[in-house]
Amino acid sequence: MSEPFVFDPPTRILLGPGPSEVPARVLSALARPTVGYMDPSYVGLMQELRGLLRMVFDTKNDATLAITGAGTAAMESAVFNALEPGDKAVVCVHGYFGDRLRQIMERAGAEVTVVESAWGSPTRATDVEAALAKAGDVKAVGIVHGETSTGVRQDIPEIASLAHKNDALLIVDTVASLGGVEFAADAWGADIVYTGAQKCISAVPGFSPITFSDRAMAAINARKTPCQSWYLDALLNLTYWDTPPKYHHTGPINLAYALYEGLRIIDEEGLTNRTARVKKTAQAMWAGFEAMGMSMLVPEESRLPTLTTVCVPDGIDEAKVRAYLMQQHGIEIVGGLGPLAGKVWRVGLMGASCQPRHVILLLAAMEAAFKAQGVSVPSGAGVAAFSERMAG
Amino acid sequence: MSEPFVFDPPTRILLGPGPSEVPARVLSALARPTVGYMDPSYVGLMQELRGLLRMVFDTKNDATLAITGAGTAAMESAVFNALEPGDKAVVCVHGYFGDRLRQIMERAGAEVTVVESAWGSPTRATDVEAALAKAGDVKAVGIVHGETSTGVRQDIPEIASLAHKNDALLIVDTVASLGGVEFAADAWGADIVYTGAQKCISAVPGFSPITFSDRAMAAINARKTPCQSWYLDALLNLTYWDTPPKYHHTGPINLAYALYEGLRIIDEEGLTNRTARVKKTAQAMWAGFEAMGMSMLVPEESRLPTLTTVCVPDGIDEAKVRAYLMQQHGIEIVGGLGPLAGKVWRVGLMGASCQPRHVILLLAAMEAAFKAQGVSVPSGAGVAAFSERMAG
Repeated sequence: MSEPFVFDPPTRILLGPGPSEVPARVLSALARPTVGYMDPSYVGLMQELRGLLRMVFDTKNDATLAITGAGTAAMESAVFNALEPGDKAVVCVHGYFGDRLRQIMERAGAEVTVVESAWGSPTRATDVEAALAKAGDVKAVGIVHGETSTGVRQDIPEIASLAHKNDALLIVDTVASLGGVEFAADAWGADIVYTGAQKCISAVPGFSPITFSDRAMAAINARKTPCQSWYLDALLNLTYWDTPPKYHHTGPINLAYALYEGLRIIDEEGLTNRTARVKKTAQAMWAGFEAMGMSMLVPEESRLPTLTTVCVPDGIDEAKVRAYLMQQHGIEIVGGLGPLAGKVWRVGLMGASCQPRHVILLLAAMEAAFKAQGVSVPSGAGVAAFSERMAG
Repeated sequence: MSEPFVFDPPTRILLGPGPSEVPARVLSALARPTVGYMDPSYVGLMQELRGLLRMVFDTKNDATLAITGAGTAAMESAVFNALEPGDKAVVCVHGYFGDRLRQIMERAGAEVTVVESAWGSPTRATDVEAALAKAGDVKAVGIVHGETSTGVRQDIPEIASLAHKNDALLIVDTVASLGGVEFAADAWGADIVYTGAQKCISAVPGFSPITFSDRAMAAINARKTPCQSWYLDALLNLTYWDTPPKYHHTGPINLAYALYEGLRIIDEEGLTNRTARVKKTAQAMWAGFEAMGMSMLVPEESRLPTLTTVCVPDGIDEAKVRAYLMQQHGIEIVGGLGPLAGKVWRVGLMGASCQPRHVILLLAAMEAAFKAQGVSVPSGAGVAAFSERMAG
């Protein structure tokens, strides 16, 4: 006989690839009374949101909004609006999410050239240059800025220049990076950029920011066929974000409250202060892992501060470590995906999850988990190295 | 100089076409701690949700889930999974949302036959029969059960029989009806049925239930081409709802908490008790409107209890009435769409919005609003007629 289900979501320490810890301020905002999707208070909130979204994307793009759905809905909106059936596209695949971008480009009926690099390495600009030259007449290039599957941070400006030199749009996935890692849509030349609410913004999942440059909007307005999704059609969605708004779908009212509060927290700290703080905390955590005898998969120059892939030491059963962390302390870190399964842990420092107290607990708990498997670790070395770097 | 924005969502009395009033229990659930999208507690919740969704759809369909997005995302999932480019489809348009279904079928590349009826009248089965015969080899028929734009309740079983006789799938939109009006997916032969969370279920918007019959799943599995949306692909989405789940996208964790609680409230009351209560309240409200000298657009046999289109009396400025209700009491009712603009108000009794105290306030406030425009109404007649019917 199975136990009756009891609804009682536990308080986890979310150090995985997202969702991240949601601050109490955001949860309180989420539970405010639901209003109509055309209520003056909601229309006002949407305009505030647009301003805050421009801040976090570092853009002046008029066409800045959020898509009602997961980050993958925003990814699909980016691709479906940029590409028409038969268009040529180049996609940079250096992990799981680059490959998802490829699959969605294929469902858009595009002729896709894949630029592949090993999981753990970023895409090389020279490879993109060669692919653009070979394919010819490419409409869009897609690339992931922060690959959650590998922990790679991809340099964007050079790829953007190449795309523009070839009259192609640059689509950038910042789901795992925006709000936690330096990013500048306008200065770097990213034409369509999207993210999720539940990673470095620390709002809850289901409402996904996206921005389109004027170049992207000109291309979208010049399409010969309508977007293959009515729901994700940028032109239709944007009419809802206009003043006065035109009905397109029911906005996810309470999620907008949460996103607003999550963005306000970033604005209050200051985006540059925040990315610097995350970087410092990540570097200190890396020092902690190294002091415990572990190494990172990705070389430091391409390492994503918000998501670290740390290699599982020899002799350690990685799944048992995760189970120990979850059972003893409710800590969520996750295993590797695809070719990295069993080889790495993925440790996130996204949004409100990026707190020294969480890292200290993680390092101490990992030490205990290693010892429980009979693997020796210098006692307290991880925490000491972390604390020293944080104090420096 | 514009006033600084203050985030302070007001407490409205939501008597429009949705979102409906969200019970405190649901808002509290919404604000529970966010967990990971593969957390054992979330995986358990998804299974509970599937059971509760089968209850509200009145189905045994294995393929019962919710789509991360607005009701329109679920509409698009229904269409994109059922139809491939070049497939023939019949769509019944008796209002705004039937027309949206048509637009989405066209974006799916289908060859669409439209069966149109006047706004305010349901689709006639004989018209569907003729369209099916004329088009030949139709893959799917689409129809709206509760038209939010007109207040029409459409009879389903006969249309379902016709679809099945022609080997077509029946897609039914229940966004404005499910959980508030009698509906039986299995008994009536509806193959793909979807709804929204924020209408008669009174959870918040952004997570939209959908169910696929075994016939629908067989057709989907027999497709020659993949679904044109990776995000809305039913086969991929269903892997996330399996046990153990396979990652597809990040579920809208906190919205799932809200949907669960909204469905629990329905389950506790009992679906049949609930639809009977809504019907009784609606009938009493109609009596109230009539006692005030108003008439309903839709004849009673086709009238949707959850959304009433009440005709604007001669000599009344309808927008001024809505402004009065909103400004004096924070009551939201809305105006007519398309050909009904200026002619009707749309009054919803969806989910937790269906409460006698709200109807009494509405009737009293409308009387005052009419008098403020110099139009005479028998004092207290609306409230008296409502209360009498409710007591009966």
